[in-house]
Amino acid sequence: MTSAPLRLAINGASGRMGQALLALLRTDARFELAHAVVSPGSAHDGEPVWPGQALCHAHDWSKAPALDVVIDFSGPAGLAAALDHCLAHGLPLVTGTTGLDAALQARLEAAGTRIALLRAANFSLGVALLTRLLREAAAALPEWDLEIVEAHHGRKQDAPSGTALALGKAAATARDTALDSAAVYSREGRTGERVPGSIGFAVVRGGDIVGEHQALLIGSGERLELGHRATDRTIFARGALQAAQWLVGRAAGHWQMEDVIASQG
Amino acid sequence: MTSAPLRLAINGASGRMGQALLALLRTDARFELAHAVVSPGSAHDGEPVWPGQALCHAHDWSKAPALDVVIDFSGPAGLAAALDHCLAHGLPLVTGTTGLDAALQARLEAAGTRIALLRAANFSLGVALLTRLLREAAAALPEWDLEIVEAHHGRKQDAPSGTALALGKAAATARDTALDSAAVYSREGRTGERVPGSIGFAVVRGGDIVGEHQALLIGSGERLELGHRATDRTIFARGALQAAQWLVGRAAGHWQMEDVIASQG
Amino acid sequence: MTSAPLRLAINGASGRMGQALLALLRTDARFELAHAVVSPGSAHDGEPVWPGQALCHAHDWSKAPALDVVIDFSGPAGLAAALDHCLAHGLPLVTGTTGLDAALQARLEAAGTRIALLRAANFSLGVALLTRLLREAAAALPEWDLEIVEAHHGRKQDAPSGTALALGKAAATARDTALDSAAVYSREGRTGERVPGSIGFAVVRGGDIVGEHQALLIGSGERLELGHRATDRTIFARGALQAAQWLVGRAAGHWQMEDVIASQG
Amino acid sequence: MTSAPLRLAINGASGRMGQALLALLRTDARFELAHAVVSPGSAHDGEPVWPGQALCHAHDWSKAPALDVVIDFSGPAGLAAALDHCLAHGLPLVTGTTGLDAALQARLEAAGTRIALLRAANFSLGVALLTRLLREAAAALPEWDLEIVEAHHGRKQDAPSGTALALGKAAATARDTALDSAAVYSREGRTGERVPGSIGFAVVRGGDIVGEHQALLIGSGERLELGHRATDRTIFARGALQAAQWLVGRAAGHWQMEDVIASQG
Repeated sequence: MTSAPLRLAINGASGRMGQALLALLRTDARFELAHAVVSPGSAHDGEPVWPGQALCHAHDWSKAPALDVVIDFSGPAGLAAALDHCLAHGLPLVTGTTGLDAALQARLEAAGTRIALLRAANFSLGVALLTRLLREAAAALPEWDLEIVEAHHGRKQDAPSGTALALGKAAATARDTALDSAAVYSREGRTGERVPGSIGFAVVRGGDIVGEHQALLIGSGERLELGHRATDRTIFARGALQAAQWLVGRAAGHWQMEDVIASQG
Repeated sequence: MTSAPLRLAINGASGRMGQALLALLRTDARFELAHAVVSPGSAHDGEPVWPGQALCHAHDWSKAPALDVVIDFSGPAGLAAALDHCLAHGLPLVTGTTGLDAALQARLEAAGTRIALLRAANFSLGVALLTRLLREAAAALPEWDLEIVEAHHGRKQDAPSGTALALGKAAATARDTALDSAAVYSREGRTGERVPGSIGFAVVRGGDIVGEHQALLIGSGERLELGHRATDRTIFARGALQAAQWLVGRAAGHWQMEDVIASQG
Repeated sequence: MTSAPLRLAINGASGRMGQALLALLRTDARFELAHAVVSPGSAHDGEPVWPGQALCHAHDWSKAPALDVVIDFSGPAGLAAALDHCLAHGLPLVTGTTGLDAALQARLEAAGTRIALLRAANFSLGVALLTRLLREAAAALPEWDLEIVEAHHGRKQDAPSGTALALGKAAATARDTALDSAAVYSREGRTGERVPGSIGFAVVRGGDIVGEHQALLIGSGERLELGHRATDRTIFARGALQAAQWLVGRAAGHWQMEDVIASQG
Repeated sequence: MTSAPLRLAINGASGRMGQALLALLRTDARFELAHAVVSPGSAHDGEPVWPGQALCHAHDWSKAPALDVVIDFSGPAGLAAALDHCLAHGLPLVTGTTGLDAALQARLEAAGTRIALLRAANFSLGVALLTRLLREAAAALPEWDLEIVEAHHGRKQDAPSGTALALGKAAATARDTALDSAAVYSREGRTGERVPGSIGFAVVRGGDIVGEHQALLIGSGERLELGHRATDRTIFARGALQAAQWLVGRAAGHWQMEDVIASQG
């Protein structure tokens, strides 16, 4: 409990998640921020991470000190560089970067034989638990109709959310089907009857809703409603830190937020 | 209060709503069922409406006795015949028949100069009140994003529900826009940002859900959720009877369920 | 799959649940109703269970034929008699009777060494699953505040519902505490701050709500909402039949609805 | 539209609401902050309101410049002093201060003959609209059972919330009854049946929930759910500013947030 703080690098330190992480790290005794990487050419490059302190943003890994764990919310190029560094030094890596091409996806996949990796679409502990509960519910009541409703702010560019899709995938797997064949993404006009075994998605957009997901398992005369509401974006940064702490010392392999939750109970 | 019961005809007596109405009428002292019309060729034609009683189903209006009001849940042809009878005898008409062609639509429209008509997509008193509340809310907070979520059983053939569309129309009118231009019926893939002033619809299908509608008015940092849940189909038949009682003695014109509600308070 | 139907006795056949079970059994090929017990002195005693069929209601077990399983929704005296019969013939027993005194409670407890018993406050499959999910969630996120909200019709005599209390007990056990010490059953006036680790209950009463339960796990910036809605009372009778089918052939002991669910997945 | 900004005083400038107001005022062109009053002895007294700007906190009204409107979130003593100043200069006053004794309450009441006053328990525009909608719904469906559910963070000291009580009062008035006689604040143990016409309250506490209120109007087979969720505390400060802007130029009298909403539509 009184062990030395974990030496942490943030990759993508000037992004939205990077800044949320830096804000939390100012008062989090579990970690010592040891390296903060921004894109080459960033205005932050070379500037102090916090006013009046020695640590400055860097644009590469060449001067990285000894580390215990890396958190990455950058972009494909940034992730590729961080992955090289983690493989070279045997460091665990937490990443939320999206938009990977097939080659990087394959490299990440292969890295699981050598280092501990945790990749997630959503770093909320509550969503991780919801995913596990939905998996169980979908298997336990295989005949009940499954629908997933999600709501986000009006600036969101895509639908359904990555988290809604991840929930759908978890449920489909639990029912021995594939989301691609089960998913119904829109219903408009003469839809005909609901196809048994399908998974429907419904999307709400408006205001500044942080993110809400609800899975409905609908039987005859009764239903289950399993939902999660995020009301503050900092939960995602807090979850990423919890994942980083948890990942230190784990075996090589691909881990999930559900694993972080599982070992809490 | 001790006035004679209203003499009522049910048009479409063997349909789902017709049967629900007949079941309620057995114990409803406000009404005396005086005529029950089924399609020509129906197996019910000529048979007693209730076992051991004199009143029999008829297939036309030629032998209709004196009436106070007509309720119609039949089909376009049935509605046309009932409308003729109501016009000939100056009778108020409650109708929930859908699928009218333009000619019948025009005849119904024109009939409003001569008889009292009440036509609705949903005869629930709660939905009528929700419609009025949504109209006010949409006008009072014109900048807030409006979304309508509805849920129905898996056998429903169309989406969004007629009631969801009617709610959307009421809100669009209250905001001086048209639903056709404001409506977003599906969101899938790269949707881009939400368009200000649009009205989004989200659809859930499953199990035996009778019918649920929720209007979300979403601002920054807060939102209103105005919803209705139906859990028993008999509310629609009860609402139609309440509408029929209310319509007797009204002036010629086109009335709505909201008017029935308004005079309750 | 083509095995002979299970020979079933219903104890408490003229009660609300008994009648719901009889209605379902007319068309359920899994079972053959072989004995239907009512209270001595009941108007049903000696009368046919279904019009025109041979099986008549009985007021005791003396003439019971060979059976595979017994379902009891009677009262303490009725349960005591059914328990004697089950013990004498080694029959599995499903019971939803409440209001047992300590002596009968102890007899039931002891019977678990000799026959298979399944006793529940709520026979809905959905509630059984909700109970299991809540147990896991309460353990996985032990720091999150837990609240249980339930809603029932206005004629309900007690609060919170037995099901809400059972959910609270399951969660308390999962957190290594006792519901008695953790429960907060009402909040009114100057309550002061919420006590960490407490489990709050909130009660809604109105209309003809069949039964709704929601467990809220509330963290900082996010929460989980795990809920169940019953919209048709027949789910409880269907669940009892499913429990009876499942219980046939099980080892002696005390089983729960959660066990029935667990072996479905 | 290009009129000069309104000259505004904040009374209680160092409190939670006061600070939220000051933060908004930095970028709100509708207002010019002209006076900021803190308690005598406050550490802020005499200090600049914003770093590097001339305006300093004051502890009284003696040096107040010419004003257009005053917003007060202080305490009874602070409110009394602000009221004196407003009466002396004919200024409109917005106040959210609670805990008034009978004498101050009477003075405030009497002031309504001379200045425009707006006092509220909740400055959210959404809650104001919800109050109006609930009033109408309670009157339109007088037989439906009314229940109010509210949820707040775990540090809240009282229950039900002032807003829930205000909603209950509005509904009771709309039904020509008094909240005192209709309210049921807790249900525990053998409650017996729900009393027709009663208004039930249910309370949830946990995490950092900003504030949620839901009014349920429950009929037979259907219900209305009218709810509001606040997810960001700044809505209350924004609402107070909107009220202040609206109040300038109004006639003397007691105004409500509902009036602010009404003139928006």
